[in-house]
Amino acid sequence: MSARTSLAALNAAPPEAFAAFAAELFEGAAWVGARAAAARPFASVAALHEGMMAAVAAAAPEERRALIRGFPDLAAGLGALAPDSAAEHAGAGLDRLAPDEAEAFARFNAAYRARHGIPFVLCVRRHGREAILDSFAARLANAPEAEEEAALREIGYIARLRLVDRIEGPGLPQVAGRLSTHVLDTHAGRPAAGVALRLYAVGRAGRTLLDTRTTNADGRTDTPLLSGAPLRTGRYEIAFDLGPYFRARVDAAVATLFLDTVPVRFGIDEPEGHYHVALIATPWSYTVYRGS
Amino acid sequence: MSARTSLAALNAAPPEAFAAFAAELFEGAAWVGARAAAARPFASVAALHEGMMAAVAAAAPEERRALIRGFPDLAAGLGALAPDSAAEHAGAGLDRLAPDEAEAFARFNAAYRARHGIPFVLCVRRHGREAILDSFAARLANAPEAEEEAALREIGYIARLRLVDRIEGPGLPQVAGRLSTHVLDTHAGRPAAGVALRLYAVGRAGRTLLDTRTTNADGRTDTPLLSGAPLRTGRYEIAFDLGPYFRARVDAAVATLFLDTVPVRFGIDEPEGHYHVALIATPWSYTVYRGS
Amino acid sequence: MSARTSLAALNAAPPEAFAAFAAELFEGAAWVGARAAAARPFASVAALHEGMMAAVAAAAPEERRALIRGFPDLAAGLGALAPDSAAEHAGAGLDRLAPDEAEAFARFNAAYRARHGIPFVLCVRRHGREAILDSFAARLANAPEAEEEAALREIGYIARLRLVDRIEGPGLPQVAGRLSTHVLDTHAGRPAAGVALRLYAVGRAGRTLLDTRTTNADGRTDTPLLSGAPLRTGRYEIAFDLGPYFRARVDAAVATLFLDTVPVRFGIDEPEGHYHVALIATPWSYTVYRGS
Amino acid sequence: MSARTSLAALNAAPPEAFAAFAAELFEGAAWVGARAAAARPFASVAALHEGMMAAVAAAAPEERRALIRGFPDLAAGLGALAPDSAAEHAGAGLDRLAPDEAEAFARFNAAYRARHGIPFVLCVRRHGREAILDSFAARLANAPEAEEEAALREIGYIARLRLVDRIEGPGLPQVAGRLSTHVLDTHAGRPAAGVALRLYAVGRAGRTLLDTRTTNADGRTDTPLLSGAPLRTGRYEIAFDLGPYFRARVDAAVATLFLDTVPVRFGIDEPEGHYHVALIATPWSYTVYRGS
Repeated sequence: MSARTSLAALNAAPPEAFAAFAAELFEGAAWVGARAAAARPFASVAALHEGMMAAVAAAAPEERRALIRGFPDLAAGLGALAPDSAAEHAGAGLDRLAPDEAEAFARFNAAYRARHGIPFVLCVRRHGREAILDSFAARLANAPEAEEEAALREIGYIARLRLVDRIEGPGLPQVAGRLSTHVLDTHAGRPAAGVALRLYAVGRAGRTLLDTRTTNADGRTDTPLLSGAPLRTGRYEIAFDLGPYFRARVDAAVATLFLDTVPVRFGIDEPEGHYHVALIATPWSYTVYRGS
Repeated sequence: MSARTSLAALNAAPPEAFAAFAAELFEGAAWVGARAAAARPFASVAALHEGMMAAVAAAAPEERRALIRGFPDLAAGLGALAPDSAAEHAGAGLDRLAPDEAEAFARFNAAYRARHGIPFVLCVRRHGREAILDSFAARLANAPEAEEEAALREIGYIARLRLVDRIEGPGLPQVAGRLSTHVLDTHAGRPAAGVALRLYAVGRAGRTLLDTRTTNADGRTDTPLLSGAPLRTGRYEIAFDLGPYFRARVDAAVATLFLDTVPVRFGIDEPEGHYHVALIATPWSYTVYRGS
Repeated sequence: MSARTSLAALNAAPPEAFAAFAAELFEGAAWVGARAAAARPFASVAALHEGMMAAVAAAAPEERRALIRGFPDLAAGLGALAPDSAAEHAGAGLDRLAPDEAEAFARFNAAYRARHGIPFVLCVRRHGREAILDSFAARLANAPEAEEEAALREIGYIARLRLVDRIEGPGLPQVAGRLSTHVLDTHAGRPAAGVALRLYAVGRAGRTLLDTRTTNADGRTDTPLLSGAPLRTGRYEIAFDLGPYFRARVDAAVATLFLDTVPVRFGIDEPEGHYHVALIATPWSYTVYRGS
Repeated sequence: MSARTSLAALNAAPPEAFAAFAAELFEGAAWVGARAAAARPFASVAALHEGMMAAVAAAAPEERRALIRGFPDLAAGLGALAPDSAAEHAGAGLDRLAPDEAEAFARFNAAYRARHGIPFVLCVRRHGREAILDSFAARLANAPEAEEEAALREIGYIARLRLVDRIEGPGLPQVAGRLSTHVLDTHAGRPAAGVALRLYAVGRAGRTLLDTRTTNADGRTDTPLLSGAPLRTGRYEIAFDLGPYFRARVDAAVATLFLDTVPVRFGIDEPEGHYHVALIATPWSYTVYRGS
């Protein structure tokens, strides 16, 4: 990946340099940058991204299909991939699939190309591995026209993330989501401090531990559970250890607490969204809600 | 196990027949019945049970210890067991332990006898398998005096359940607990009908499915999830399928619901108690509480 | 009001007697019963009511308008009223209106007759006094065709209640609503017993005390707050005295409790419905919901 | 009240000037400053306050009683008051009492002096008017020794607030509380924007409107409901207009909403505390809690 540049530098760059920059974002399609160059200067990085997507939208239908065809199949081997695609695939774990998963991807890729005439394009940085397979299945069934549109939308996501990776400074589009939590103890009427919690990704085969934390004096974690990048869509669980927290407030004769580890399962659907999972608890009740 | 009898028949029985009846409840100790016989007639089955336990309490210390020693080790092989004990052990799964579990029981039995001089007596019909092992560990550490008292308390539980099994008619002591649930949909302002749910026993090695139900028009199950016997102490989970229930009320563009299957984990500590696990939900929030 | 009769007696009565019975229900319109008589025997009181309403629906348009015109203006003085209407008006407090209210009713009556050509017919047993005035205002603005239908619907409600008053035995239609409450203490994990509460009707000028109760061991009131008759639509408040209940569990140094008397305001819209107003509370939080 | 000064200026001031400054905080007792002057420089305003209170604590018993006796009776007429006391009394409404209230204050003042031998000293900036009377009644009943301590604690609060009024810059002690709210719509799964709400002070004679607001896009008010000064202890109500907010989501045939204006009553006990009153609502349920 190139070293970081700035919006000012891009606005001032010779057209050929600007086109070469865009080619990295659009899997080699330098023409996107060549056409967007005329609309410079852009007031913000978000406007720059919109300018390039406008060039894509204004292109001839066959140009757009060629752009889509320039993207690689998912999980088809990293040898032939451009550096960005290779890193993106690896980030989603597509470079180390189990044999049956790899076979599923191969089967999906072939079926998708046969039905829609284009590769399956998905911004994998925004999705968990199972969500990628679910998305594959859902989009395979769509009408071909809808899929061309879907592929271009995904290319927009891919290019936006690649763009943000390359630029320093303000004016960046919002690409990072956030997952946070808060535990309130309404038995004592204060934030629940010192509650151990674990974050898991939940898949069909079970849970994968992502993080372990303890709530601070305000009942929150010192930093968000996930942030700084798009959240990956999929299902998650936070397991809150309320048992040790409340133990001293329950009759010592009670050997088996009503609430011990409280699992809260939830889905993330918007990779750029803010998911605040709040827990309000007593030893005998709790409320979970998506807060803000 | 004997055929069912009645309180009236027991009140009218010859003392020797009454003593023989009691011997089945107290693992062969006919003397308990022989002494309680004089206090007849009993006004209720509960009073009969109390009368026999009063005879135990009034016995000489060495008689009480002999009573305790008459009970078998847990999970020590079914060959030598009286029919009641054999059925009770089998009901708790103690007749089909994995090798490492069997070994743990043998180790505990030996250590307990070595430390306290009596067998480990526990009313296993009131406990789940892991709760039995947890109880073993906790009681091993107690002071020997406390354990004699604990063993007699457990003998009271055992005899009460054996008594209730043998008697028909009213006046029975309360030995059955109950587990029920209720799902309320505060998005629509009505009971949540048609919600699929599953009840699991939760152990250290995972969950065991106990029952599958669907809520009725009142948001409840037609019959309690567990009832008619003491609940077994331990941890449980009810998994509520809120996803399919609320799907049509969430924007169709949302592929991954915030709430799909909601797991509610809770502990049962009172085998004769009523556990009502209530769930109040919307597609983005839920409240769980132990109701009444 | 006539003495109570039975469905069997009505099924067997001479047609003229049956018609006279119906005349009391339909403000003098004996023809309703005369025509419904042929459909006897009715299998239930509900079916009898439907049979009479079917006769109304099958009548000529001018007959139906004459039926409507047979009903009196609301609150227009009790002198001229048939006994049922007099009792119904008195039950809703229309016989003791403040001068400005009486004037409002007179104004509404005149405006309604001028616009729709019929008297304003409303089953006042199903509504609170302010709800009656609100209903007046809303229906005044409707299209005349819609109002004829509304008047007939209200006549159905009126006749049903008068019918249920006159009949003994099973098979009665559901005319009684119910208001109940339940207080759960999730600080201690049990029903909240001994909580004083007051039920008020809430009007624009303030609250009117309807009832004072204390929760029993199950956190409920021994009998419903309202029942045995249609609930009157309108706004209500239950004031729960949580302060004294929780006082001992809050630090004695706290002079002003966070929660003391908790007012819960809610509306009743279905006179025949079941309104269960549940309160789940700790000293620092509470949840209110319409339960079932 | 003097113009603002700075910690640096006070640390550098001649001892007599420093003593004169302290005299304003301690109702004329310049000796407090004269003795604390030696401990200068103070690292923060909070440390300065502690230094002066340490001088009070180290004084002879008769000096401390003289200090207490230097404070005026509450609501005894503003003529004789020092400027700070006059402003403080006026802020609590003590300069415009109803005749019966004025009489109650006079009676309490006399009874308190008779019993305890000192005037009733209370930092009235921290309390609502009814809370002042409640406090009067409670402290009248205390033992005289406890009351001397209580009076000195109140003098500490008074001096701290007067000190903070006079100083600019960082390092100030925390004297301001905060009242905020947040409305979450769990029917739609987002903050509830555009909800009108009103804040009232609740007294025995009724409510007094303090503020009217509307929630912003985040479900909060743009600024706290109360802040920038100690909160006054007492009871409050926030009335949330959920009816208009949820109207479109309830069946149009429902004339009387289950929830319309939701009153939430709560007490403030810590004038320097943060009270966050959160409301999570659907058209048929709501949860209130003291958040953080």
